[in-house]
Amino acid sequence: MTYLHDIPLDEAIAAWHGALLEIGALRRLSSESLPVAEANGRITAAPVWARISVPHYHAAAMDGYAVRATETVGATLTRPLRLELGTQAAYVDTGDPIPAQFDAVIPIEEAQRLETEPGPVIEILAAVTPWNHVRTMGEDIVATELVVPANHRLRPQDLGAIAGSGHSEVQVYRRPRIAILPTGTELVAPGSDLKPGDIIEFNSIILSAMAQDWNACANRLPMLADDYEAIKKTVIAALEDHDLVVVNAGSSAGSEDYTARIIAELGEVQVHGIAIRPGHPVVLGHARGKPVVGIPGYPVSAMITFELLVKPLLQQWMGQEPQAWPTVQATITRKVLSPMGQDEYMRVTLGRVENAAGDARIVATPLSRGAGVIMSMVRADGIAHIPRFSEGLNAGDPVTVELLRPPGVIDQTIVHLGSHDLTLDLLADQLRRLHPNRSFSSGNVGSLSGLLALRRGEAHLAGSHLLDAETGEYNLSYIRRYLSDEPVVVLGFVGRTQGLITPPGNPKALAGLADLVRSDIVYVNRQRGAGTRVLLDYHLQNLGIDPAGIQGYDRVEFTHLAVAAAVASGAADCGLGILAAARALHLDFIPLFEEQYQLIIPRRFYESDLLAPLLEIIRSEGFRQAVSALGGYDVGHMGEILASID
Amino acid sequence: MTYLHDIPLDEAIAAWHGALLEIGALRRLSSESLPVAEANGRITAAPVWARISVPHYHAAAMDGYAVRATETVGATLTRPLRLELGTQAAYVDTGDPIPAQFDAVIPIEEAQRLETEPGPVIEILAAVTPWNHVRTMGEDIVATELVVPANHRLRPQDLGAIAGSGHSEVQVYRRPRIAILPTGTELVAPGSDLKPGDIIEFNSIILSAMAQDWNACANRLPMLADDYEAIKKTVIAALEDHDLVVVNAGSSAGSEDYTARIIAELGEVQVHGIAIRPGHPVVLGHARGKPVVGIPGYPVSAMITFELLVKPLLQQWMGQEPQAWPTVQATITRKVLSPMGQDEYMRVTLGRVENAAGDARIVATPLSRGAGVIMSMVRADGIAHIPRFSEGLNAGDPVTVELLRPPGVIDQTIVHLGSHDLTLDLLADQLRRLHPNRSFSSGNVGSLSGLLALRRGEAHLAGSHLLDAETGEYNLSYIRRYLSDEPVVVLGFVGRTQGLITPPGNPKALAGLADLVRSDIVYVNRQRGAGTRVLLDYHLQNLGIDPAGIQGYDRVEFTHLAVAAAVASGAADCGLGILAAARALHLDFIPLFEEQYQLIIPRRFYESDLLAPLLEIIRSEGFRQAVSALGGYDVGHMGEILASID
Repeated sequence: MTYLHDIPLDEAIAAWHGALLEIGALRRLSSESLPVAEANGRITAAPVWARISVPHYHAAAMDGYAVRATETVGATLTRPLRLELGTQAAYVDTGDPIPAQFDAVIPIEEAQRLETEPGPVIEILAAVTPWNHVRTMGEDIVATELVVPANHRLRPQDLGAIAGSGHSEVQVYRRPRIAILPTGTELVAPGSDLKPGDIIEFNSIILSAMAQDWNACANRLPMLADDYEAIKKTVIAALEDHDLVVVNAGSSAGSEDYTARIIAELGEVQVHGIAIRPGHPVVLGHARGKPVVGIPGYPVSAMITFELLVKPLLQQWMGQEPQAWPTVQATITRKVLSPMGQDEYMRVTLGRVENAAGDARIVATPLSRGAGVIMSMVRADGIAHIPRFSEGLNAGDPVTVELLRPPGVIDQTIVHLGSHDLTLDLLADQLRRLHPNRSFSSGNVGSLSGLLALRRGEAHLAGSHLLDAETGEYNLSYIRRYLSDEPVVVLGFVGRTQGLITPPGNPKALAGLADLVRSDIVYVNRQRGAGTRVLLDYHLQNLGIDPAGIQGYDRVEFTHLAVAAAVASGAADCGLGILAAARALHLDFIPLFEEQYQLIIPRRFYESDLLAPLLEIIRSEGFRQAVSALGGYDVGHMGEILASID
Repeated sequence: MTYLHDIPLDEAIAAWHGALLEIGALRRLSSESLPVAEANGRITAAPVWARISVPHYHAAAMDGYAVRATETVGATLTRPLRLELGTQAAYVDTGDPIPAQFDAVIPIEEAQRLETEPGPVIEILAAVTPWNHVRTMGEDIVATELVVPANHRLRPQDLGAIAGSGHSEVQVYRRPRIAILPTGTELVAPGSDLKPGDIIEFNSIILSAMAQDWNACANRLPMLADDYEAIKKTVIAALEDHDLVVVNAGSSAGSEDYTARIIAELGEVQVHGIAIRPGHPVVLGHARGKPVVGIPGYPVSAMITFELLVKPLLQQWMGQEPQAWPTVQATITRKVLSPMGQDEYMRVTLGRVENAAGDARIVATPLSRGAGVIMSMVRADGIAHIPRFSEGLNAGDPVTVELLRPPGVIDQTIVHLGSHDLTLDLLADQLRRLHPNRSFSSGNVGSLSGLLALRRGEAHLAGSHLLDAETGEYNLSYIRRYLSDEPVVVLGFVGRTQGLITPPGNPKALAGLADLVRSDIVYVNRQRGAGTRVLLDYHLQNLGIDPAGIQGYDRVEFTHLAVAAAVASGAADCGLGILAAARALHLDFIPLFEEQYQLIIPRRFYESDLLAPLLEIIRSEGFRQAVSALGGYDVGHMGEILASID
């Protein structure tokens, strides 16, 4: 059994690049000559100097008559001047060469052609100065001038200037060729029928697409099982015709992690283990004169390490320097602990939310920190880097976030923090469809945490279904208690049925909450502050049931779907949740309680332009029908103002 | 003769889109199903809902032993607990399914396998809680969950999540097909041998590359001469198998501008002429149920109108809304007049320059406003929009600039405003090559304007060769007069020879400045404030020559190369300039004066990190050799501090 010795990121890169430099593997790539029209987005390998001037002759800048400026002197509105066509003036279209004897153009609108004897003349009403309305030779580009430097990423206008200055081809770096080798006995192709233990191989799709975005050619090799000889043979073959070989997974120190051994056998390993999170089990080395990288198997780890380690190498090969990502300063919404000694790359959602004092600030809400949660990369607006000298952040701390989306998107993001309901996904999709610029970012933190987030100015709205046991009302007493300083609107959203989610056929014949204390029943609960948890505790108390007698009461999930998933997987026999979650996973449902799920919206956001399209959708017939079609929802109060609390 | 009736941009778009809506040409494109691995960068045509959960089973999150958490209770360092392998514990690799009877994993590092009788056991030193080190089913994605909404541009991580959630294909909008038809009898292909009047056709390369960047397929059709029937036939054929036909040039109202007539004959013209600059001669219409656009022939006009008119159409077809460009607030460095009633799109270079008070501000320097100057788009860092209600800007006015480069680039840009020398291009290329992140932006405004720009805090350095007639010194007296508040360093750069540039063979047998007053000689001059102009006027005065007697004294160019180009084209017989410019265009040169071209650098910039790489290059042997190789330059003082003025 070996353990990884994690070293800091900068030391790892320095050691690896040092070794690559020695074997000549950091040199710029060779170049290729491409027709200009095919070079968009490519990187120049040499400066481009103008071969010819543009224009390469004196050209008419307007349709009109070429003349000698000296012969136009004295022409005025009241004393027009006549010039003989042929000898003193010649018609030219825009772009035509100015005949050698002329030096200016009179626009056609300012001259009148007259048929006189012995020949036609033009009559002009104003003089022109020399070179008026003439594009003189070299006005745009002078021969020998620098058009674009080396190591420049070609844009459409660059292609135009290169072609215009006399080139039909341009020297660009050839694309680096990267082999991506997915390994793992458990891997199956996307779309396969799955059995437990199978893992759909999609990392190679992600890494190839990233490489493509960076101007490289990625070659996804066929998946291999964890077979030392087979992997080694494939790596050797890939080294023949690629600039870089990436082995995905098998980069740790487990019994079937072969990457480090194979690189060591074929060449040299410089680094095994980097102190970053996610992503520490990385192998950096070289073989046969080329770099070889072992990338971890968890998808977020794979993306982060590919970005941190492979991108700089490609940039080096094509004369690019790492560009700092665009960043924003944000306020973190939760306490985050991060281990000392590790650089952490935390995914966050971002939104611009004014607090009650009217200060607009960008709030960053951490997403799942699991290395396996690819949805955290899908949902993320940015990545907050917590350096290895830090133990983490406290709620309210400032944090610098590298943006994964254009900054403008942040201002268009509606931030929801609160209870989860499936219809919010539907709402997000309709919003995106009808208002492509708006985003809906939803953090499933539970009803009570949603209200507290509103109080702290971290969200624009909160979905909530908090039952007041004394009044039987939803949300109002909680709003009065926690949001006393903030005028809010309580908007009706959906009525829904809470009940026990059970496996298909209800095999343990559950009938109600009283069954939860049976010794053959394992329950799955929701977290504290969730409306469903409040509801459960309320009814348990009414029934005189002690939670301590319920197996699984302490295992909590954060969404209805997660509860349903726990039941579907057999990890629990039942959980309290909504019908839609049971349906989604083809489970049975024992209806118990009706409840109101409402949207709590501070008045200043309720009246904002930002939220207007969302409110419009909530009140639209189309959305009402789509929610009804899910089944189990009462849309009678949808979009209605149930209370306005000032 | 018809004239265009220019209407405002928003009215033009409204009229055109209104007509397109009526004929059904604004509908979303149809979609196609693509393998997930091929969909990077494409736009989803439908939301993607998870078909399966990820993981789809409870998976070990570490290599270790699956156990029942309840059976680990009580294990401590001092009282380790033993669990029987097989019944109480089972080895699992990361990603393996947890056998149904277990609910937690003990990492391999925290358990020890012992070979005991009757069978092997593991010894553990700590208890685990249920679901510890387990990725529960659905931790990443729960079946039925929204993975990505419709109208979403797919990124690498999205592809991973889509494949992971059970899809092998994804529905995306098909790429819109755009036909780009270059027309004009004067057009020739890039790389052709040129005769006067020929224009290299490169607009279709630019427009195709822009369309490609916007997710469209552009089809560059073969060039056509200005032939009504041929163009019409080609437009009809192109309408068959494209979504949009773009006719480039022929969009004005000249005798050979056929686009509007052809569209009107085949369908309907909504707009002919838009009040924008550059770019007003635009035709917007439709034919055979599809939009047809006539785009002006000047390349900057073509780019600006394609961006303003075609991009929104593509976005509409693929469910995207126009994204605001990232902008910066800048200070304009020169007075700019702009006609009332026209929206102007002015190209500017940008740089962050601290003024003497220490305020860092971004300065915007206007580039050529000519619609034909494609280099203005190549050099531009951004575009300043001057609205049609404005008559222009005064120097020092604030201006909003849409960025063409990442904002980080601005901070890395070294801004030179001053006299032009060919070696500056060489310097720019070497800087880019050795420090790809740094840019060198050079505005050729002449020596004196450069010093004034330094005073106003608009540039980091100024190249200058201003001769003081009384002292015979260069620059010092001017610096004392114009930069008295600013400590500066005067850095030696190049000594060079000024002389008369003449056509090859010096056909008019020129010998010196005395010949300039000959009646058969046309001179080409430099602008006021240029060092070369100062030099000329100084020597003319010494020789007692009246400038009024020199033909062409009033025609000014802004660079040595432009003067040489004027001579090469026959527009002038001679001009004062440097040897390198004469050599570059294969002209003759009559050496007259030696002069010093120096770099004037405020001390605070001289000592900045920003300029350090530039100074290093100036002092490098490689650069010195490259300049010497040009010929005609004395590099004896290059990089030397000639004066330090506090």
